[in-house]
Amino acid sequence: MAITEENPGYKWVGTRPIRPDGLDKVTGKAQFGADLTLPGMLFGKVVRSPHAHARILSIDTSAAESMLGVKAVITGSDFPDLAANGAHPMAIDVSHNAIARDKVLYEGHVVAAVAATTRELAEAAAKAVEVSYEVLPHVLTVDEAMADNAPLLHEGMITKGVEPAPDQPSNIASRIVHERGDLEQGFGEAEVVVEREFTTKPVHQGYIEPHAAVADANSDGRANIWCSSQGHFQMRADTASVLGVSQGTLKVTAAEIGGGFGGKTVIYLEPIAVRLSQRAGRPVKLVMDRDEVFRATGPTSGTRIKVKMGVSNDGKLTAAEVWMAFEAGAYAGSPVGAAGMTVIAAYDIPHFLVEGYDVVCNKPRVAAYRAPGAPMAAFAVESVLDELARSIDMDPIDLRLANAVVEGTQASYGPKFPRIGFVETLEAIKEHPNYTAELGPNQGRGVAAGFWFNAGMSSSATVHINENGTATVVTGSPDIGGSRQSMALMAAEELGIPYESIKPVVADTETVGFTDVTGGSRVTLATGAAVVDACRIVIEDLRARAAKTWDVEIDQVEWVDGQAQHVDGSQPPLSLNDLAAKSGRTGGPISANASLNARGVGAAFSTQVCDVEVDPETGVTQVIRYLTAQDAGRAISPDYVEGQMQGGVVQGIGWGLNEEYVHDENGNMENPSFLDYRMPVASDLPMIECCIVEVPNPAHPYGVRGVGEVGIVPPMAALGNAIKDATGVRLTDLPMTPIKVLEALNEQSD
Amino acid sequence: MAITEENPGYKWVGTRPIRPDGLDKVTGKAQFGADLTLPGMLFGKVVRSPHAHARILSIDTSAAESMLGVKAVITGSDFPDLAANGAHPMAIDVSHNAIARDKVLYEGHVVAAVAATTRELAEAAAKAVEVSYEVLPHVLTVDEAMADNAPLLHEGMITKGVEPAPDQPSNIASRIVHERGDLEQGFGEAEVVVEREFTTKPVHQGYIEPHAAVADANSDGRANIWCSSQGHFQMRADTASVLGVSQGTLKVTAAEIGGGFGGKTVIYLEPIAVRLSQRAGRPVKLVMDRDEVFRATGPTSGTRIKVKMGVSNDGKLTAAEVWMAFEAGAYAGSPVGAAGMTVIAAYDIPHFLVEGYDVVCNKPRVAAYRAPGAPMAAFAVESVLDELARSIDMDPIDLRLANAVVEGTQASYGPKFPRIGFVETLEAIKEHPNYTAELGPNQGRGVAAGFWFNAGMSSSATVHINENGTATVVTGSPDIGGSRQSMALMAAEELGIPYESIKPVVADTETVGFTDVTGGSRVTLATGAAVVDACRIVIEDLRARAAKTWDVEIDQVEWVDGQAQHVDGSQPPLSLNDLAAKSGRTGGPISANASLNARGVGAAFSTQVCDVEVDPETGVTQVIRYLTAQDAGRAISPDYVEGQMQGGVVQGIGWGLNEEYVHDENGNMENPSFLDYRMPVASDLPMIECCIVEVPNPAHPYGVRGVGEVGIVPPMAALGNAIKDATGVRLTDLPMTPIKVLEALNEQSD
Repeated sequence: MAITEENPGYKWVGTRPIRPDGLDKVTGKAQFGADLTLPGMLFGKVVRSPHAHARILSIDTSAAESMLGVKAVITGSDFPDLAANGAHPMAIDVSHNAIARDKVLYEGHVVAAVAATTRELAEAAAKAVEVSYEVLPHVLTVDEAMADNAPLLHEGMITKGVEPAPDQPSNIASRIVHERGDLEQGFGEAEVVVEREFTTKPVHQGYIEPHAAVADANSDGRANIWCSSQGHFQMRADTASVLGVSQGTLKVTAAEIGGGFGGKTVIYLEPIAVRLSQRAGRPVKLVMDRDEVFRATGPTSGTRIKVKMGVSNDGKLTAAEVWMAFEAGAYAGSPVGAAGMTVIAAYDIPHFLVEGYDVVCNKPRVAAYRAPGAPMAAFAVESVLDELARSIDMDPIDLRLANAVVEGTQASYGPKFPRIGFVETLEAIKEHPNYTAELGPNQGRGVAAGFWFNAGMSSSATVHINENGTATVVTGSPDIGGSRQSMALMAAEELGIPYESIKPVVADTETVGFTDVTGGSRVTLATGAAVVDACRIVIEDLRARAAKTWDVEIDQVEWVDGQAQHVDGSQPPLSLNDLAAKSGRTGGPISANASLNARGVGAAFSTQVCDVEVDPETGVTQVIRYLTAQDAGRAISPDYVEGQMQGGVVQGIGWGLNEEYVHDENGNMENPSFLDYRMPVASDLPMIECCIVEVPNPAHPYGVRGVGEVGIVPPMAALGNAIKDATGVRLTDLPMTPIKVLEALNEQSD
Repeated sequence: MAITEENPGYKWVGTRPIRPDGLDKVTGKAQFGADLTLPGMLFGKVVRSPHAHARILSIDTSAAESMLGVKAVITGSDFPDLAANGAHPMAIDVSHNAIARDKVLYEGHVVAAVAATTRELAEAAAKAVEVSYEVLPHVLTVDEAMADNAPLLHEGMITKGVEPAPDQPSNIASRIVHERGDLEQGFGEAEVVVEREFTTKPVHQGYIEPHAAVADANSDGRANIWCSSQGHFQMRADTASVLGVSQGTLKVTAAEIGGGFGGKTVIYLEPIAVRLSQRAGRPVKLVMDRDEVFRATGPTSGTRIKVKMGVSNDGKLTAAEVWMAFEAGAYAGSPVGAAGMTVIAAYDIPHFLVEGYDVVCNKPRVAAYRAPGAPMAAFAVESVLDELARSIDMDPIDLRLANAVVEGTQASYGPKFPRIGFVETLEAIKEHPNYTAELGPNQGRGVAAGFWFNAGMSSSATVHINENGTATVVTGSPDIGGSRQSMALMAAEELGIPYESIKPVVADTETVGFTDVTGGSRVTLATGAAVVDACRIVIEDLRARAAKTWDVEIDQVEWVDGQAQHVDGSQPPLSLNDLAAKSGRTGGPISANASLNARGVGAAFSTQVCDVEVDPETGVTQVIRYLTAQDAGRAISPDYVEGQMQGGVVQGIGWGLNEEYVHDENGNMENPSFLDYRMPVASDLPMIECCIVEVPNPAHPYGVRGVGEVGIVPPMAALGNAIKDATGVRLTDLPMTPIKVLEALNEQSD
């Protein structure tokens, strides 16, 4: 089901053709990160810290170096000291996270690496590297890290964003705050005030494909890197920074990517692989196993969140107070900032205070995960909203409708909303038969909404017209969520030629203009706008060539259905094919580049309703029905939009019911595999039903809003609200595992 | 020594920095055609005709197909019948030259191909393909092919360019003619008339690297091709044509190229490799050996040329009559057309008739070879000029100066010359000490000049500014003669940043705009102009961003020395680095594309003087001194310009003294190796001294003229004239081998 505000009669946009990368992916031809093999290539292996927090006393690489077939062994001392070079603190963190120098800050932190002629030999050599540590006390959670006299990860770190600046270092990297109105007045105007405290656990993005990189260094300092990432320009920049070289010396080619969800915006193996290749004089491949992915790549933050909200009897929210602490892992940079922006942004609340803390602890540095920060925040606020609705006996959708932000509302984080579709997603759910379907025993229904601001950033695109009138559309955005198809659909629509005549290409860092990382659901919007711009430059050029051919002014030429037409029909039309074939005589080849910094990002909203059945004997929660309504602005490729909506929900269900990092008292992860870290699989789930809402983003030529992230924001609260509906118990700690449900049921019945 | 008309004070243009591809090439890192290895790759082998002319009666592939490890066997029937599809005759010829259908037209013509798991197995399988032939009578030379009742290669071929059209087919594909004035009047005005007949032999371009191609076909019809060529867009177009698919389905990546000289503008292995890969479902590599290169790839034409010229006593040429017949090999398309354009184009002659014939014969189809057609024509005309000068006792340079074309002269082939530098090259030689150096016994001196019109055609370039203010310059011209360096030098000059900050990249057919083949000495001119255009678009963008930053009009901003400067100095300058770092806030990434069809190609002239010593006992001619003066317009990269000048001369010396194809009576080549086909090596030669003359081409931003080809035009005549000077005998048949010299000496002394 799709709810579309208007239908402009597009020919290609909104259709569901075969995806350009489909056959390669189903036949195994597509090359992912680990698939590149080069002649003479070595296999690398990384040596990782077994300790959560320790000082490195010494590293003895001599045994490893003396092994036959071992071609290179490197440690942190093989990389420049960015701190000494006056680099930006964030660059220093990236460098130290890639390979430790004096201290290791989490189990799995890289301390050395080897390259050898076989994988087995590399593993043996990695074991032969002898590292001597002084183990230090560690902190694993925000509670431990924020405690008085907690051991410090970074001895000199002073909290930012606090006035006056603290005079003592701590594990709190920074504080953020958003406030409006007068909290006391706001809560004074409320009939009901609910205050609750929530915790969430770190969860991993869980991409199928582990990180992998192949580097091939030249003897003049240049190097080629092949890796799967969400943005090869970002990989280039960060790798260059860690290596201390100019971006221009590195060429990064985007492999196909087996999932990222934010976790592949970060470098791990790339600078290691380049340095090993430089030392060995041969190409080097590094591939993580699942254990390494869990122990050493960024999950999202575990959090503690307190929410207090007030509502009037007629359902108007009067005030909100939010306190959040987010684990950053080993280095500053949790998504608490985005959490602060999004936590109450879907609602028009006159009085509020939102404050958040970014807290380091001895776990892997967190990485972005689908709408980073928003899901935990929404779990808290949307749970409290559910309680407020129950308290005043109001339909939960009606409560949200009564307070929903609309065009013109000033968002809690600052700007005024342009045209947005939150109300439309709420209404879509309310009108759907799922919302009134009958529930059986032990079943319950939960509603929750989600907001994500989406990002814009920089993108480039080039369009080349081939001699036979087909087109190549070149972008620098790795195809993570179907961008090849959406770019081809928009280009076909613009140029007026068949989708099949468009070849979408993801180019390397040398052959397309700079393009920011794929994140913030920005690619269809921003890279798409660059593709549209480039197509329009091409069309202008084609009109000029037709005008030249006919010896008329360009305003006498229209571009319609893939051909130049004279406005009064006095000339036989010239097709793109005709014009391409004659381009040598009308000015040369037909190509255009467009680069832009996207403006007018369209905010995304999702409303979801889920029905669960909770087994009172086992505490197991089974999702029996799930419906998600999301404003896509315009669904360029409805198949992929639905895929994004469903994927977000499924990851949210895992986060809500099952997934968590479990650590022992030494700070070692106890469940670093998909056997023990339990993600939902197809048999765990019902069909996730999708309702695409289309309220066009006025700032995009096709009305696109980002669709990739917001779907993961509501599920945890929707599940918690449904469990409450089914059982009467309110769970506030994620994941809502059978044991927690049972404990709550037992407590209730006591 | 360089003679420069003006020196505009360039910072980078005209300097001699380290070449960007240098280290990779000396360390063996650079990947040439045969260097790509893919996992699962098969080795292919082509089955070739042992006959010069034969009908294919049957091909039995069953034995080859049944061999273990053989994964694909194909024949001509695996390719579409372009003739039946109404394709252009030239496309049909390309297709039939790639793989024979009903007839083989030369020894080495492809009839089938195999792919197997090892090279040895592929060779065995190729031998197991059984082809049954009906051998037909053959013709090897223009004399045989033009004889009455000669066997016909193409039964229905009617000569083009003859009015009325002949009513009988022949081996003459076409006739070209250029004429002016009244021959009878012209020769009537002459004091001396010389008429001579010349023959030249087919010679091969002799590139070090044999042809190689790797193809990797996808299951949806797309395919990647890796090959060394002079133009991967041409490879794409021709391969697509032979396979009967759209250009857009093929991606061609340019390998490094180990020499081309015109011979790698043609497809041979590419469509075979793709089809084998499609049939086998795995990548396939095909590599020729030297024997195959000689027998089956295009040398240049053998020719017969008659020249009659008249001169007045004061050294004015009064008339010229030229008759030329050029071998085309198996399919029409010898360079007789270019020979007709160039043969007398260096001289202003009031009355002339030039006619030429394109003649097919049972040898491999000729391919372009450095100034195709001009060297043989110049050998004839410049030898006759030498005789005319001797006849009227005039210095040979003075004779040429008295008749040299200058700005405003109407060329023999039509257009009026813009500013050209022929006179300057003549004067450069005349003034050089070599021209008056003393000669010893058996030594002689010869002068000759050469003309080449050069080509323009289509090129594209893209310039991307990296985040740190370095730049990537992307073109679609394979780096054959130093284009990476010349593009980087021009970009550095334009952008005002160091040469080392520019990374020149040769992109594949998907990631840069269409670019024609590297031929006609066009790349520095045309692709260079596209680079300059793209840089200027970038600079305009940078000025606009600086203006925006300063809140001033763009005309208040100049681009000087790599930075934006306010005209009145009221703002601190903004460097490219500054502007690049802030591009996200001023409109997005900085990139520009430029595509053009080059206009104002600058014609090239070369004058050369050589001294030889002829051993009267053995007939061996030793080149003892060689000087070449060539108008480069502007030498962007003087190292490479000198390399081109020297390379052309050396190839001309080989052509003049040693190289030739030798066939037996069955039409089988007897010397298909570098042992028996004798090219000059370093020890055969003196240093080739270079004098770069710079008379800027007014139509190019840096005054560039093509430099790659004209250097091969004068040597054969210069050598012949020097041998005449040393011995008194005039040789008119190439190559001027010791035995021919001895025979002529013996004849003289008889």
